[in-house]
Formats: sequence, C-alpha cells, structure tokens
Amino acid sequence: MIQFLDLKKINARFEETFQKKFKHFLDSGRYILGDEVETFEADFASYCGTKYCVGTSNGLDALTLIFKAYIELGVLKANDEVLVPANTYIASILSVIHSGLTPIFVEPDEQTFNISVEEIKRHINNKTKAILVVHLYGQLATMEAINDVAKEHNLLVIEDAAQAHGAINNNGKKAGNLGHAAAFSFYPSKNLGALGDAGAITTQDKQLAEMIVQLRNYGSLEKYSNNYKGFNNRLDEIQAAMLSIKLPFLDEDNARRREIANRYLNEITNKSIQLPYYDESENHVFHVFVVRVTERDNFATFLKKNSIGYLIHYPKPPHRQVALQEYSHLQLPITETIHEQVISIPISPVMTDEEVTQIINLLNAY
Amino acid sequence: MIQFLDLKKINARFEETFQKKFKHFLDSGRYILGDEVETFEADFASYCGTKYCVGTSNGLDALTLIFKAYIELGVLKANDEVLVPANTYIASILSVIHSGLTPIFVEPDEQTFNISVEEIKRHINNKTKAILVVHLYGQLATMEAINDVAKEHNLLVIEDAAQAHGAINNNGKKAGNLGHAAAFSFYPSKNLGALGDAGAITTQDKQLAEMIVQLRNYGSLEKYSNNYKGFNNRLDEIQAAMLSIKLPFLDEDNARRREIANRYLNEITNKSIQLPYYDESENHVFHVFVVRVTERDNFATFLKKNSIGYLIHYPKPPHRQVALQEYSHLQLPITETIHEQVISIPISPVMTDEEVTQIINLLNAY
Ligand SMILES: Cc1ncc(COP(=O)(O)O)c(/C=N/[C@@H]2[C@@H](O)[C@@H](OP(=O)(O)OP(=O)(O)OC[C@H]3O[C@@H](n4cc(C)c(=O)[nH]c4=O)C[C@@H]3O)O[C@H](C)[C@H]2O)c1O
Ligand SMILES: Cc1ncc(COP(=O)(O)O)c(/C=N/[C@@H]2[C@@H](O)[C@@H](OP(=O)(O)OP(=O)(O)OC[C@H]3O[C@@H](n4cc(C)c(=O)[nH]c4=O)C[C@@H]3O)O[C@H](C)[C@H]2O)c1O
Repeated sequence: MIQFLDLKKINARFEETFQKKFKHFLDSGRYILGDEVETFEADFASYCGTKYCVGTSNGLDALTLIFKAYIELGVLKANDEVLVPANTYIASILSVIHSGLTPIFVEPDEQTFNISVEEIKRHINNKTKAILVVHLYGQLATMEAINDVAKEHNLLVIEDAAQAHGAINNNGKKAGNLGHAAAFSFYPSKNLGALGDAGAITTQDKQLAEMIVQLRNYGSLEKYSNNYKGFNNRLDEIQAAMLSIKLPFLDEDNARRREIANRYLNEITNKSIQLPYYDESENHVFHVFVVRVTERDNFATFLKKNSIGYLIHYPKPPHRQVALQEYSHLQLPITETIHEQVISIPISPVMTDEEVTQIINLLNAY
Repeated sequence: MIQFLDLKKINARFEETFQKKFKHFLDSGRYILGDEVETFEADFASYCGTKYCVGTSNGLDALTLIFKAYIELGVLKANDEVLVPANTYIASILSVIHSGLTPIFVEPDEQTFNISVEEIKRHINNKTKAILVVHLYGQLATMEAINDVAKEHNLLVIEDAAQAHGAINNNGKKAGNLGHAAAFSFYPSKNLGALGDAGAITTQDKQLAEMIVQLRNYGSLEKYSNNYKGFNNRLDEIQAAMLSIKLPFLDEDNARRREIANRYLNEITNKSIQLPYYDESENHVFHVFVVRVTERDNFATFLKKNSIGYLIHYPKPPHRQVALQEYSHLQLPITETIHEQVISIPISPVMTDEEVTQIINLLNAY
C-alpha cells in the first residue's frame, strides 16, 4: 500500500522538535498573536522576498482578507469584476464572492492548466479591476505576461499561492512576490503544512498589510479600539511555531518533489497516461502530480486494486457545483474536460525511491 | 504582583496531559475534522444539554455562522432586524453586520448590565426577527422573560455564551440551551479556554446544526462537493483535544470562581466601590468580576501602584467605536455610563486565598 500522502510520516521527521516547541509554547502562556506569529511572519516574508507577511487563520480567509482590505482602502468596490481561473479549487472563487466582488470565470491554457493570458485579454472590460491568479498544482502561472496585461489595464494582480510555496520564476522571484498581494494556505497537506488550519498573505504594499493586520483582529490595532468592521482571522501561535520549524526544510522538500516528478516524467512511458507539462526553467514545486487519462474510472480502479493511493484534483469544476449554480450556464469546455480526466498520483518528500519505482512500473503496466 | 489573569498557571495544571495528548495527536496524523473534534462536540453538547454541538474556528465565527445558516435556511433574510445589547463586546454586533442583518442597539438593565426586557419590548417592530442575548461577564440574561417576548412575537433567540460556559439557570438548564442556538468562544482567557482560537455552536435544531456543519467547511458535506457558498471556519483538532482535557474541570473551576466572588461580595466593604449584582439562584460563572467606581482613572492608578492587575471590560461602547460610526448618533446613556465606570479585578480558578485576601484588604483601604 502506498498512501496518496503520508502526512504522518512527513511530520514525524520533526516530532522531537515539535514536542520541545510545544513545551516551550505552554510555558510561554501566550497563545494568540505573540512572538511565534511575529517570528514566522518575518521569516516567511524574507523567504518569499516580500516586505510584509501577515499570518491568517487559513488560505480562504487570507484571500478574502486581501479583497476586503482593498475594498476598505477604496481600491476596489462592491461588484467590481475579478477575473478568476475557472479551473481551480472552489475556495479561490468563494473569496471573491464573499468579498462582494463579481468573479468572471476564465478558461485555462490547455497545456499548463493555469489561467490563459489570451482568455484574460478577452474578458477585460471597464468593470474589470483585478486578476486572481492561481499557481495550480505548484506550477507558476505565466506571471510576466499577466502582469503586462494588468499594467496596461491598471488591474490588480492577486496570487493564490496555496499550492505553490517556494516556486521560483526564471527571474529568481518567488511565488508570493509576483503580484500586488498573495495568499498562502498552510492546510496540512500543502507543501508547507501546519498541524491545523493556517494561512498568510504576503505583499510589498505597506498600506495593504497594515489594513489586513487590523481586519484579521476585529478591526483593531490597539486592544478594545476598533477602527474597522473586522474579523477573527488570526494565525494561531502554535501553528506559527510549528510552521517555523518546517519552513527551513521547504526548499529541500520541494527539491525532492521535483526529483520524483522528474522520474515520473522520464520513466512513465505508457501512452494512455498523459504526463503534465513541465517548464524546467520555472521552478514547479509539484504540490500534486496530476496526470490525464481518458478513462479515469478504469484507471482509478486499477490503482485501487494495486493499493496505490490517488486523489482527484478536482472531480467537479466550481461552476458545476450546486453552491455556484448561478454560473452553471457557463460554457467552459477546457475546464470541464480537465475535470473529467485528471487524477493525482502519490508525490511527497518522504516517498522512497522504491515506492516511486513501484508506481512507475505499475503505471507502465496499465 | 497579582496578575489580572495568570493563564500560564491555569494551563500548567494540565501540562502533563497536554503533552501526552500532543504526542497522541502527532501520531494520529489527523489534524483537521477528525476524532478529536467529534469527541469534543459530543461531550460539549452533552455538557450543555443540547442535541448538537458544532466546533468552529472562534466565537465571532460561531455567531456569524448561526446567522448565515438561518439565512441559507430562509429563516432570516438580508436586512432583518436583530436586537442586540448595546453593552457588549463588539464581536457580538459585528456578527450581525457581517451576516447582512441590521443590528438594533438595546440598552441594558442598570443592575445586571444585561439586555433589558423592557427595552427589548420597546424596540420590537415588524422588521424584528431575532434577539441576540449576551450573558455578559458570566451572568445569565433574564432568559425566561426574553423567551416569552420572543415567542409572542415569533422571534429567534440567539445566545452569545462566550462568557458563560457552564452557567445554569434556576431550572437547571445551562447556557447554550436557553434559546434557539448559542455561540461559544474558547478564546484562551475564557472560563473554558483553548490554547488558541476556538469556538462552537450548540443547538437543539438539527437542520441548523447540519447547515452549520456544511458552512464551516466550504459548504461541503462530502469532499469536493460544495452545496453552499461556505467558509473555512473549522475547529482545529489540536484545540478540540486540549478542550476535551479541560472540560471535565470546568464546573470545579466555575465553583472556585464563585467562591472568590462570594468573598469579594461579602468582604469588600468600601462604599466607593460598587459591587456587581448577584442573584444566587442563577449560577453566575464570574468570567470576570466587574466593579463600578466613579473615578476610574484614580482607582486604576491605585491598583497599578499596588501591583494588582486589572482590565476594563470595556472602555468604549461599540456604538462609539470608529468601526461603527454610523451608529454614533445613538443615545445610549446607560451603556455609556457603564463603560465609563466599570473595571475588572482579578478572578480565576488558580488564585490563592491569600491573593484574594490581599485584594480585599487593598480595596477596602482605597
Ligand atoms: C488553490 C487554493 N486556494 C485556496 C485554498 C484554501 O485554503 P484553505 O482555506 O487553507 O483550505 C486551497 C485549498 N485547497 C485544499 C484542496 O486542494 C484539497 O486539498 P487535498 O490535499 O486534496 O486535501 P485532503 O484530501 O484533505 O488531504 C490530502 C491527503 O492528506 C491526508 N490528510 C489530510 C489531512 C487534512 C490530515 O489531517 N491528515 C491527513 O492524513 C488525507 C489525504 O489523502 O482539499 C482541501 C480541503 C483544501 O484545503 C487551494 O488549493
Ligand atoms: C461576548 C463575546 N462575544 C463574542 C466574542 C468573540 O469571541 P472570539 O471570536 O472567540 O474572540 C467575545 C470575545 N471576547 C474577548 C473579549 O472579552 C476580550 O477578552 P479579554 O479576556 O479581555 O482578552 P485579553 O485581554 O486578550 O486576555 C485577558 C488576559 O489574559 C492574558 N492572556 C491572554 C491571552 C490571549 C494569552 O494568550 N495569554 C495571556 O496571558 C492577558 C490578559 O491579561 O478581548 C478578547 C480579544 C476577546 O476575544 C465575547 O466576549
């Protein structure tokens, strides 16, 4: 049996340090917005190359806070249009809706699965105010081209970097530092995963960061003084403490993911399995390794029978979810086909070479 | 030096159990919505005497989820009026606003500081759909009278029980089971406090509980299938685990709080310090012990000089906060006077008799 993702094993590497830190955390008597959050924020900002990082409760809240902060700052206003990838985890789109903005679904590039620049251009009108870019599966979107279009039309560029911690573009810049602001999720299964819900925003924009610092804490900078209609969207001290332990190993973990991905790309030779596009010059961090098969049910049954874990990212596109039925009339054929065919096979920093070989052999025998 | 609240000491009592549990938690490899959350939900529901408990990210989100769930269920709709105590922590009111409902500020009873039934009656009109009751400082609001009025006008009654874990009315029913639904905060300083942000809702209403279960988890019951425009408002496994350790000691802790409160009430004899109202038949849980003084700055300086911690719950009423400036025209003289005069002196289950004596002597010498 090879699990899809052995999170227990991933975290077991840090168990002793986690336990020491937990004791230290208990002894501190500080559980909310203390030194651990500040330290992690500073370290993660420096890791991403941004001036600011603000810890948040999770990735969805991080995204939502960015939009709500821009609204408080008067940069965005209710019903402004935000271009979003049609092909993403639903949270990306929910953040736009929860902020009172209008999501405009944009088809992806067929090769990369990431939002298509041509399609972006096609959807820009005078109500368009922002582009929400998702670096899906750990692969950076074509940020240079997107930023050019955005500049031309005076649009904000927000990165949903929930799946791309540590990805580096060919100019050496990291995910989280490729637009006006970025949201990260540290959901446990992410490349940098907490031991519970956690998230962060990164940005070079001081005003934005300061607004989010208030909005995540009841709209308050100073205790019992509320300047904005804020929320409770704080990053927990304990999660920050655990993240600080794992952050130094992120690059190493990502390198191991790429190593495994490279083996898959080179050694899976079965023509009925379509391998993902991979531009070596951009540092894909392979949050998941997603292949395409035309008869997915068949393939899934085959994996199951052979005790190989898998997941589908994602089985149903956002515009086909009951939750978003007002968008169900949209014709998004590329997105729909992708959702019918994708399937994620195991990849993780703690997989052994033998496990990788086993999977390759099995897939070649499919 | 007597701290206002020695949280470190409160939690130190459980340190060994916390550490064992933490190891068990790490070994489980389950960090989100697993057994710990389920166990705590079952235990807390049973503690409160309700059929359902749903863990949430914090108290503000618990309140907001209740309102949003009623909206999804068609029981409430945008702009419906909700009567709220003018004299509360701002989070209570923010939850109403964030849900798209209209808060109507209601003055408290001068004696109990809790929402006044007479004032409730005065504000009911045909737009009124709910009453948000806060059991302020750990003292139950006059629920029987409030429920009677609510029944008569067909209004929902929502309890904000963030400060009243374990309070019992004179019919033996607990906070959390005195209206249609209740929100709890397990913010670390609460009578039942987590080691980070955490909250819960309790209710007898199956439909409501089921809706909140979905709304707190991206609107989803089944992975990747989204029925509602949900949120990420989950209670963390680790916080649930820690709360389960502390819950069995809540009644004992509350009893100790009452013991200290009784000494304060009997032994503080200084006429310039107005002691809180206390109906012995209702089981006040003294989340904080709040006295009134006319010259608060003076009194605070006196406490500080004598190394006694204090806090002010709260220095500025919600309608005077910049965040709620559209309500700043309201005339709420009782609320305003309370905010000018209240000050909270130390009370906690880990205070020693000597510390209590020291505080009493000092206050009598003021
Ligand atoms: C682009 C984008 N934007 C915003 C967001 C929103 O961020 P969020 O609010 O922080 O969730 C996401 C999140 N996205 C993820 C989404 O990608 C998906 O992630 P996933 O890896 O498929 O999640 P999973 O199936 O729960 O876990 C994967 C494996 O890991 C194992 N596991 C998991 C957990 C939680 C555990 O405790 N123990 C385990 O052993 C079981 C599974 O085999 O579903 C999650 C609920 C979302 O948070 C996103 O992808
Ligand atoms: C009626 C009502 N409804 C909804 C809510 C919203 O619930 P929430 O979203 O869960 O916060 C509240 C919350 N209400 C509380 C509010 O009452 C107030 O609580 P407080 O006890 O005055 O808070 P505090 O000053 O942070 O902590 C008290 C003492 O404890 C010490 N401490 C504190 C922390 C956090 C620590 O880690 N270590 C410490 O040593 C320092 C302080 O001396 O302020 C909080 C931020 C709110 O969550 C409420 O009262």
